[in-house]
Parts: sequence; C-alpha cells; structure tokens
Amino acid sequence: MAVIIDGKRIAQQIKTELKEEILKLKEAGIVPGLAAVLVGNNPASALYVNMKQKACNKLGIYSEKITKPDDYPEAELLNLIDSLNKRDDIHGILIQSPLPEHIDEGKAILRVDPRKDVDGFHPINQGLMLAGRPMFLPATPSGIVELLWRSGNKPAGKHVVILGRGYLVGRPLAVLLALKNQKGNATVTLCHTGTPDIYKIARQADILVAAMGKAKYVTKEMVKPGAVVVDVGTNKIPDPNHPKGERLVGDVDFEEVKEIAGAITPVPGGVGPMTIAMLLSNTVKATKQGL
Amino acid sequence: MAVIIDGKRIAQQIKTELKEEILKLKEAGIVPGLAAVLVGNNPASALYVNMKQKACNKLGIYSEKITKPDDYPEAELLNLIDSLNKRDDIHGILIQSPLPEHIDEGKAILRVDPRKDVDGFHPINQGLMLAGRPMFLPATPSGIVELLWRSGNKPAGKHVVILGRGYLVGRPLAVLLALKNQKGNATVTLCHTGTPDIYKIARQADILVAAMGKAKYVTKEMVKPGAVVVDVGTNKIPDPNHPKGERLVGDVDFEEVKEIAGAITPVPGGVGPMTIAMLLSNTVKATKQGL
Repeated sequence: MAVIIDGKRIAQQIKTELKEEILKLKEAGIVPGLAAVLVGNNPASALYVNMKQKACNKLGIYSEKITKPDDYPEAELLNLIDSLNKRDDIHGILIQSPLPEHIDEGKAILRVDPRKDVDGFHPINQGLMLAGRPMFLPATPSGIVELLWRSGNKPAGKHVVILGRGYLVGRPLAVLLALKNQKGNATVTLCHTGTPDIYKIARQADILVAAMGKAKYVTKEMVKPGAVVVDVGTNKIPDPNHPKGERLVGDVDFEEVKEIAGAITPVPGGVGPMTIAMLLSNTVKATKQGL
Repeated sequence: MAVIIDGKRIAQQIKTELKEEILKLKEAGIVPGLAAVLVGNNPASALYVNMKQKACNKLGIYSEKITKPDDYPEAELLNLIDSLNKRDDIHGILIQSPLPEHIDEGKAILRVDPRKDVDGFHPINQGLMLAGRPMFLPATPSGIVELLWRSGNKPAGKHVVILGRGYLVGRPLAVLLALKNQKGNATVTLCHTGTPDIYKIARQADILVAAMGKAKYVTKEMVKPGAVVVDVGTNKIPDPNHPKGERLVGDVDFEEVKEIAGAITPVPGGVGPMTIAMLLSNTVKATKQGL
C-alpha cells in the first residue's frame, strides 16, 4: 500500500513559514499585496480567484479583486495592468486565465511587470526558468517540485516520466526537474497522447507524473511497483451518490494504483493545495525583492 | 552502414533560399544588417565571429563587427547595445559568448531588443519558445530540428533521447522536439552525467542526440540498430598526423556507430554548418519582421 503524500499538510507547512515572513515584513511596515484581475463570467475562474483571495487573507496578504465584464476592451486591460505595475502597494499581479477570446492573453501577460508576475508565466520568467536562474516559477510545477522535496521523494538521479506536455504543467515541470540543482537533477521523459509505447515508458518511471487531463488514465499496468505517483489531474466525473451529482478525480486510477505505488498524491488534497501555497510564496518573494 | 546526414549540403540549401529572400528585400531597398559584438581576446570567439561575418557577406547581409578590449566596462557595453537597438540598419545583434568575467552576461542579453535577438537567448525569446509561440529560436537546437526535418528523419511519434541537458542545446532542444507542432511531437528524454542507466535509456532512442561535450562518448553499445544519431559535440583531441597536431571529433564514436546507426551526422559537417545557417535565417526573419 502506497504512502499517501499529504499535499494539504505540506502546503500548510509552507503557509506557516510564509506567515512568519509576512509578520516580519509587517513589523517593517510592509504589507504584501496581490491584485487578481478577473475578466468575464467564467464560474471556475471566479471560484479560483476567491480561493486565492481567502488564502491571502488568512496569511495577512492584502488582496484586491478587480472584476471586469466579458466585453472589457483589451486596451483598457493593458492600461489597468500598467496602473497595477505602478502601484507600490501591489507586489503581485494575477491575470486570471482564460481571458475572453477578444483579448490576446499573451499580450496581457507580457504587459505585467516581470517583477510582479507571481504566476510565473511572463516570457521573461519562463525564459529565466529555462536558463536555470529563475525569478518566479509557475505555481503548479514548482508546487510539484516542492511536494516531492518535502515528502522526501527527491528526484535527483531518478527517472521521472511526465505524461502530458502542456504549457502549464508538463513542459515547465520537465525543465525544472532536469535542471542541475538540488531539487532537480532527474532524468526526465516527456510523453504525450502521441507517444506510441506510453505504457512501456511509464513503467520505467521512478517518479510518474500524470498531467494529461484524462480521468483515471493511469492504471496499475502503467506503474512500476514502488514508484512515486504524482497526480495533477482535476477531472469532474458524474457521481449520482455525490450531493453535486459529480466529483473530482485525478488522471490516476487512485484505488488500484495505490496498491502498487510506493507513494501517491491524492485528488483532491495532493497537488492542488500546493499550487495556491506557491502563489502565496511568490507574492511574498515579490514583496521582499522590492526591498 | 548508416546514411551520412550532410549538414553542409542542407545548410547550403537553406542559405540558397535565404539568398533569394535577401534579393527581394534589396529590391525593396532593404539590406539586412547584423552586428556582432566581440569583447576580449578569446581566439575561438574571434574565429566564430569571423565565420559568421563571412557567411553574412556571401549572402549579401551587411555585417558589422564591433571589437572591444578585455577590460571594456559593463556600463559601456550596455550603452553600446542600446545604440544598436536604436539603429535602423541593424536588424540582428549578436553578443559573442563568453563575455569577460566582470560583465554579467545575463544582464547584457536582457538589454538586447528581443526583436533583434537573433541568437534567441533573450529570456523573452526563450520564454516564447517554451510557450510554443516562438519569435527567435536559438541557432543550434533549431538547426538540429531543421536538419532532422530536411533529411526526412521526422521526430513526430519517435522517442528522442538527448544526452546532455545544457542551456545551449539539450534543454531548448528537448522543448522544441516535445512541442505540439509539425517539426516536434516527439517523446523526449533528457539525460545527463548523473543518469544511472544511461546506456539502457540511450538504446531506446529512435533518435539519439549527443550533446555532452565528451569526445567519442557514444559507443555502439548505446545505439539501437537503425537509430538516427545526431552529434552536437565539437571536441579537440591530439592527433600527431594532423598538421595542427589536433583534430575535431564529436561526442559520438563515429567509426563504430556508423556501422549500426540508420543515419548519422558527421563532425565536422553535420550540426555545425546548420548553426550558422539558422543565425542567418534569424537575421532575415528579424529584417522582415520590422517591415
């Protein structure tokens, strides 16, 4: 039976550490500030922004939610970003994705001051990550790195197989784990839906990361006995027994894989909580960086 | 016996295509211009810059070499870059690496206008590459992509194993080949000197890329019969029979690997010529982009 990697507990540990740092900043008269810009009526986006705000409030980070209608013009968004870039009380800026179709998301992210890009998706931050001298790392991949590190599952010298080569998780995670540093140093294989012998490759993994976005895709046949399994999936499947009629499952068939894996992250309560913790960590970092 | 992938011929093909584009630009009164900044007395750097200049001249690209002494102050270099950024006759700027130790290379590259960064190492260009919407790609990795593509060795659906995770070749190449596009779509494994079972992993490769910087590191035991082998190495080894007392060898033991591989790039004459061709291609792209 696999050890369950408790993302919630590890995220809490990080938040406790951050709280101390924030207290010290406050003693020096500085309150970290995060602005979240939400354009349009995507209910999931609204939910995420609220979760992030709540997490900020708990730690003593000032958070400001700026909501704009679905038809908010791109030019006005760019002006709004400019004004947030200039504000001294705002250290981190979050442009909640996805933006409405008429707005060029790449253009908006490029407009954010890289020193306030706590999401880590400004090309400059992505490029610095690839160069191995990161400023801000994107929250989900760096959350996974931290989760492995703090749970004692160090990737150095291990073979990590990542299923899914997306921009948000797979590709940046491959970069981070391959880097020549303490938390990296892995051999990394990046697979995708077009990988012909994905079962065979997955079974070689000492650490298997599932980030395909396909419910219960990873079965026990894909997992080497004793491997560490990280589940990044957040898929909703119908469930008549659940009050909402649906429930959240990962990309891993947890029930069967936990019988064979050495360690596994659950969904929910695995990678998810780490993502918010890393965003908060980036916000504190942005605040200290300006000092 | 492996097919020898003729990098020189393919690079020539690219240069012929570029020549036509440059002629068209000239008809419109525009001459592409490349400035190469060479600081200090590194003889290899001087040689590279001269090779690049010659290649420019042959195609009708205006090239300007700016040489500065070893003790050239960082602040002056930054000013020089600013002035090149502003010049309308200069479309591409090359800061020849390595810079003297007292200059922060990252700072210098960051100062280059990303639209003139024909080397593709400005963090913005690196980040856009990682995001899958590239502006300028670094010359060696994109040269390898082009070499595979034009020699009919398409990586899509193949397992590419890259030996060496460096910033200049391994990491960016892994990103490029994993991207969801025509010239990518491979399953990519990135190995390094700390990979425990590197022989076993290398032998899985349909396409094996050697970029470790170790002379003749890849032996026939590391190559699956019929695999495509790309040799990025440029190592000098002593050779009393050579007029210079040394000769250039790759990271692959060419003589024995060519007996088992399906196709192989030689050193010299493989990846090397592609690197310069891609730099020229980026310079033409930079010129057209401004129109």
